[in-house]
Amino acid sequence: MKCKKCGANDAEVYLAYSNLKLCPECFMLLAERKVRNTIETYKMLSKNDNIGIAVSGGKDSATLAYILSRSFEKIPMTLIYIDLGIPDYSQHCLEKVKELSKIIDRDLIVYSLEKELGFRIPDFKSTIYGRKMCSACGTVKRYLFNKITYDLGLTKIATGHNLDDTVEAIFNSYMEGNVGALVRLKPVLPKTHPKMMPKIKPLICLTDMECLLYATYRNLPIRMLECQFAKRSRTIRRKEVLNLLADKIPSFKHTFISSHYRRILPLLEKALGGQSVGDEMGIFDCPVCGMPTSLRSMPCHFCKIVSLLKRKA
Amino acid sequence: MKCKKCGANDAEVYLAYSNLKLCPECFMLLAERKVRNTIETYKMLSKNDNIGIAVSGGKDSATLAYILSRSFEKIPMTLIYIDLGIPDYSQHCLEKVKELSKIIDRDLIVYSLEKELGFRIPDFKSTIYGRKMCSACGTVKRYLFNKITYDLGLTKIATGHNLDDTVEAIFNSYMEGNVGALVRLKPVLPKTHPKMMPKIKPLICLTDMECLLYATYRNLPIRMLECQFAKRSRTIRRKEVLNLLADKIPSFKHTFISSHYRRILPLLEKALGGQSVGDEMGIFDCPVCGMPTSLRSMPCHFCKIVSLLKRKA
Repeated sequence: MKCKKCGANDAEVYLAYSNLKLCPECFMLLAERKVRNTIETYKMLSKNDNIGIAVSGGKDSATLAYILSRSFEKIPMTLIYIDLGIPDYSQHCLEKVKELSKIIDRDLIVYSLEKELGFRIPDFKSTIYGRKMCSACGTVKRYLFNKITYDLGLTKIATGHNLDDTVEAIFNSYMEGNVGALVRLKPVLPKTHPKMMPKIKPLICLTDMECLLYATYRNLPIRMLECQFAKRSRTIRRKEVLNLLADKIPSFKHTFISSHYRRILPLLEKALGGQSVGDEMGIFDCPVCGMPTSLRSMPCHFCKIVSLLKRKA
Repeated sequence: MKCKKCGANDAEVYLAYSNLKLCPECFMLLAERKVRNTIETYKMLSKNDNIGIAVSGGKDSATLAYILSRSFEKIPMTLIYIDLGIPDYSQHCLEKVKELSKIIDRDLIVYSLEKELGFRIPDFKSTIYGRKMCSACGTVKRYLFNKITYDLGLTKIATGHNLDDTVEAIFNSYMEGNVGALVRLKPVLPKTHPKMMPKIKPLICLTDMECLLYATYRNLPIRMLECQFAKRSRTIRRKEVLNLLADKIPSFKHTFISSHYRRILPLLEKALGGQSVGDEMGIFDCPVCGMPTSLRSMPCHFCKIVSLLKRKA
């Protein structure tokens, strides 16, 4: 198979959405260029930045950390890993991010849930979150990545959310008519509260498969274990369904997201009165931890779910 | 299988989206109630109406005409059939609508493209519409159903667009970011020009399968032939894809459309400045035929495509 870019005869990547056959080298260059273009288009980075990169041991955050650190060598970056205390899995992932940190020569901060807060994600198993562990885990991670970035005095946090993650989330929000979630699902979330750190998603232009291929071709250290709680989660099943769609309509993910950001989202934001996300939803200080929350006069989602564990103990 | 409604042991319809097993009789009552509810919710009919029902010989318009005429006996209704001049197919469909007209005891108007305008749909085969015959046919039918309704002095036109048709159209418009089309895809389109007749879609609550089952159980005369031009059309393929989605997420169609109408559409309309569809797009008189068009100082879509035929002759 001939590479469409360099003409070499070792094309082994086929990108159906653009009908492009590429050799590994040209594919990697394309992926990197796409990420740099995304960063430029959405003005994700500036030269005074000092960013945190949320890493998990997975293909997406490894790809993210590698491309960012190579493409923006002068920008200070710190990898942030949260040890969730999931048996075998968390230790395995920690080893991968340690390796990654060495390869790209950037500092790694390891935050242990158990050491810092005295609980582990599996502790939610016996709470009302027992059947939606990914939801509890997501709340914990979102809260802590923001708080750690803030405590470290960094300027923003980059996460490995890719195209598939974003299409899945936007598709769900359309299905649920959840306009609040829709306007928050943006490539860049600005600072809407002194303790709400800006968030950027530079991988929003790459599919799940592209991130996996990139990490594999670059030989990046990525986890080989599945989280015991994530198996067959709703997100995973929903992504499979959207992949069925993409099998039939190869451009589906790219067209859908581009139409959403270019045509629909601006109108939704206009209808909400040109308010920023924070204004629209209301943003308050959590009476327990002092961090920002959308809930008025109530503990934030993080404090609420953590209190479930305390009550139990 | 036991019917969930009446308890009889002859349930043979399974509605996955609401996990309901029904006997034929209870299914038909449910379908009729849904249509009546839709008509009530969207205020589709009033006692002074004198409506046209667009019929094609297919399952949807047969179901529509039957339910409307039985549920609203006092409202004058006329079936309108356009003979498109498609060999075998159009004659076959005409026989079915004649039977239907007798069964429900409502007048039938037959409008022959060939007799009235001197062309037939197959004539588009040799034009630039040769590979998108359904598009040309759709333009002709939309234009003529409106014009015939206007010329007959009727108050509005009811069409058999069902849930699957609507989900497919809305889904496409989202994918294409076609906001103009999105705000026009409503259960009721009001009169936005003296010659633009109001349109209602009472079957928007029933799936393709429900319409087929209803027409079959009621033993309504429906066509057994496929249109030679519609085979594997984009609409049909797109519907198959959305059915894959519905196989995995049974509530998909209902949730998607309900979220769209309740949450997203009102915001899109608000963003467009509370303008009506006509205002938003601009509505003008066609310089050729005098009927309404969204094109300024240009022949309407109908006149444009018909002129292709004339040029050829």
